[in-house]
Amino acid sequence: MYAKSFSVHPLSGVLGAEVKGVDLSVPPPPALSASLAGSLSHYGVLFLRSVPVTAEGMEGLMRSFGAHRRSFLVTTGATSPRGGAECHHSEDCIALMTEPYGNKPSSRVALFHVEGLPSGGAESIWSSRAGAYDALSPAMRAYLDPLHLLPSAPGASRRPLVAAHPLTGRRHLVIGAHCEGQILGVPVEEGDLVLELARNLLSAPENQIRISWEPGMVALWDCRLAQHYAVGGYGEPGWRLRCICASGAN
Amino acid sequence: MYAKSFSVHPLSGVLGAEVKGVDLSVPPPPALSASLAGSLSHYGVLFLRSVPVTAEGMEGLMRSFGAHRRSFLVTTGATSPRGGAECHHSEDCIALMTEPYGNKPSSRVALFHVEGLPSGGAESIWSSRAGAYDALSPAMRAYLDPLHLLPSAPGASRRPLVAAHPLTGRRHLVIGAHCEGQILGVPVEEGDLVLELARNLLSAPENQIRISWEPGMVALWDCRLAQHYAVGGYGEPGWRLRCICASGAN
Amino acid sequence: MYAKSFSVHPLSGVLGAEVKGVDLSVPPPPALSASLAGSLSHYGVLFLRSVPVTAEGMEGLMRSFGAHRRSFLVTTGATSPRGGAECHHSEDCIALMTEPYGNKPSSRVALFHVEGLPSGGAESIWSSRAGAYDALSPAMRAYLDPLHLLPSAPGASRRPLVAAHPLTGRRHLVIGAHCEGQILGVPVEEGDLVLELARNLLSAPENQIRISWEPGMVALWDCRLAQHYAVGGYGEPGWRLRCICASGAN
Amino acid sequence: MYAKSFSVHPLSGVLGAEVKGVDLSVPPPPALSASLAGSLSHYGVLFLRSVPVTAEGMEGLMRSFGAHRRSFLVTTGATSPRGGAECHHSEDCIALMTEPYGNKPSSRVALFHVEGLPSGGAESIWSSRAGAYDALSPAMRAYLDPLHLLPSAPGASRRPLVAAHPLTGRRHLVIGAHCEGQILGVPVEEGDLVLELARNLLSAPENQIRISWEPGMVALWDCRLAQHYAVGGYGEPGWRLRCICASGAN
Repeated sequence: MYAKSFSVHPLSGVLGAEVKGVDLSVPPPPALSASLAGSLSHYGVLFLRSVPVTAEGMEGLMRSFGAHRRSFLVTTGATSPRGGAECHHSEDCIALMTEPYGNKPSSRVALFHVEGLPSGGAESIWSSRAGAYDALSPAMRAYLDPLHLLPSAPGASRRPLVAAHPLTGRRHLVIGAHCEGQILGVPVEEGDLVLELARNLLSAPENQIRISWEPGMVALWDCRLAQHYAVGGYGEPGWRLRCICASGAN
Repeated sequence: MYAKSFSVHPLSGVLGAEVKGVDLSVPPPPALSASLAGSLSHYGVLFLRSVPVTAEGMEGLMRSFGAHRRSFLVTTGATSPRGGAECHHSEDCIALMTEPYGNKPSSRVALFHVEGLPSGGAESIWSSRAGAYDALSPAMRAYLDPLHLLPSAPGASRRPLVAAHPLTGRRHLVIGAHCEGQILGVPVEEGDLVLELARNLLSAPENQIRISWEPGMVALWDCRLAQHYAVGGYGEPGWRLRCICASGAN
Repeated sequence: MYAKSFSVHPLSGVLGAEVKGVDLSVPPPPALSASLAGSLSHYGVLFLRSVPVTAEGMEGLMRSFGAHRRSFLVTTGATSPRGGAECHHSEDCIALMTEPYGNKPSSRVALFHVEGLPSGGAESIWSSRAGAYDALSPAMRAYLDPLHLLPSAPGASRRPLVAAHPLTGRRHLVIGAHCEGQILGVPVEEGDLVLELARNLLSAPENQIRISWEPGMVALWDCRLAQHYAVGGYGEPGWRLRCICASGAN
Repeated sequence: MYAKSFSVHPLSGVLGAEVKGVDLSVPPPPALSASLAGSLSHYGVLFLRSVPVTAEGMEGLMRSFGAHRRSFLVTTGATSPRGGAECHHSEDCIALMTEPYGNKPSSRVALFHVEGLPSGGAESIWSSRAGAYDALSPAMRAYLDPLHLLPSAPGASRRPLVAAHPLTGRRHLVIGAHCEGQILGVPVEEGDLVLELARNLLSAPENQIRISWEPGMVALWDCRLAQHYAVGGYGEPGWRLRCICASGAN
């Protein structure tokens, strides 16, 4: 049976695990998708290296994470796009797609498949929103738990500052490292400092994992638990990055 | 009777009142001292303009605020000191004397009598530690109430971050606008942001009163409720400032 | 002759002067307006207390500062407006009118006449943009002089970060204490810190003057040299404030 | 000949390279030491994995970097130290040893050899002081170049804020991410913001490399070009870390 060779290897720190023995050349069977979903809700981000990958296989995996999916290809520089819509405003676009609370319906899970890299290589960081929450004192968590944020983005609606993961119940911050907005129900100066504290924790190396991309590598992350940051952005020529985001009921 | 002409006029904002009809050319009678002590615990800082003043009268007033008193004269520039020890390191010295928790025994009340001013005039600001506390949300106050601070100064001992005034019970922050130290029992990053929030509130114009000094003017303040800040410091030549600090039981 | 009784008394600090002997019950003669304009370009903000004032007199004074004028009345709480358009979003409105670089045509000079005050009184602060510039080291001034800012406000256009006053040539920062935007031509992190430095200097008590409003009082300021801040805002009931802004050539 | 198999593989980003084919079971020959010194001055930090290592070999390598050497063993938890002085205050101690400008004689090069790791693994970050300098605008570099810093540490003496590397001439910041002190010759508020800018750049992921430690791994870094940061510190039990610092002429 398939699941025999499937293994999960936690990486050091507060988030991230490496998955071995998965074949994405075909849509994974339901049992494997369920296992990966469970690991994802625990580790926040999963990495697959040197796995067979096809568009059909990735699409099949992402189908298990949500009824609504968007797929786009980021290319930079001289590379001409083959298949899929090219993303001309890649940074904002990717941030929008992978930020769980910035769009409707919210992305629950995002996948990157690196088809091509800048010649100097590239790295990414994921910050743990759960680790940032855990790094606060119990008294500060009790202070934050009932608060709501009104994001600065036009048309944004209020949302809790802290949420529990639907599968595991684990509590985590519902903000990003560059989140702007106003915390409701407290004085402005107080809310601003609280947001700064939350942002600082997301920027702390202790709450992050950093990886070097390799050609063919796949990263899969839970957009609620983990925030992605592309070190240096996507400005270098040579990127050829397949992004798939899934959202929907859960 | 003396108290007939004694009147207290609140100034706009969160602290400060002007007192009229007080004669400090002789030690004030106990009933007047008690009235001033009551007003001081309410307004935080009292100003007396154009009152008769002698060293004996000021000393008599300050005696009612504490058994231990220190008196010194700040002079700057060409002015030669007459009576009292000149303060050669005036800024640090004055800050030390008037900071309630920075020395032992702590100053409870401080008095400035301006005998001479720089030619361009001078101003002072008092920040309300009670107003800063009141400007926080009830939830943040509940968070701060049980915390303790370990000041950075060598040999400093831990103290509560919030205290209640012994006479009125009014709660106030126990830090200064330039306070450095570590909040105990919470992660360092969290404590640093909380201290920054408290310092910011003490620096907010809404929690301050600002006055222009006039020759002969007296300011009297409760060092727990109000923090003094000399706008531009004491560096200008022409200062001739009598400072008396009282501390002791209560 | 009129000008005999006209006198200007500098207030302590980096900006502000009190003007005595001016009658605003009628439009001031050209010689007086010219004198006031000269004083204004030097002191940044002028205060007139207990002067006869009429709408016609104020309008006549402001006419000398610019061909375009806007006049509006801020009222808060139970007071019903008499004459002039009530300003329902007073804070933003006033800030917009008196911010020299936030609108077109830019206000050059603003006037407040207090017809009514909240029962607890009210205070205002003016920050000196020239004093903030002067507080920098010569090397930092040389760094700032050629820079441009792109304000965050939608539709804003780039403008210099430092400007010279058209009458006196005095250099001053072209930002406000709450200015948001991006400094062009330097890395984002560098520009953000430089803006923070400039904002901090505008917030320093040493670069500010603070006054208590009295009924009937008039304040007149050069919007390029001085930034107005209403301590505690205009939220209290009882405000009845006439605002006139002049802009135009020069 | 030895040098045949010696190869240097740059890692992505602003600093760091992996070295292969070096044998540290014996003191390296002068030609190899010279090659490594050259690479070190270029890449800032070198990593050696799966190399034969002995105390004699490491000592021989470090001898080429300075006449003065200190060697100590950091152990945490149940592990008992074998040979070398245990470091009881490991964090401060290591920071002191590897901070180039914090002690006399300053460390020029530091080496870590991991003999044992916490069960959950461990990671380190190096920040590039040269990369942080390069990330500034030319105008800001011109501003910083002539400045001096007086560190807050008692007994510290003034030093330049920017220095050129003695071998390559490459300019770099002479501060650390947690550096406290006063920049001389500029206003305090200005100097504080400039230091904050420099610290922020050292904390930017773009100016850092992050590695996961493996048993037996060696890291060698130029303390002037690279600042070390142990993610999560040395608090976990299981560390067994050999540290050798070299200083001296050059």
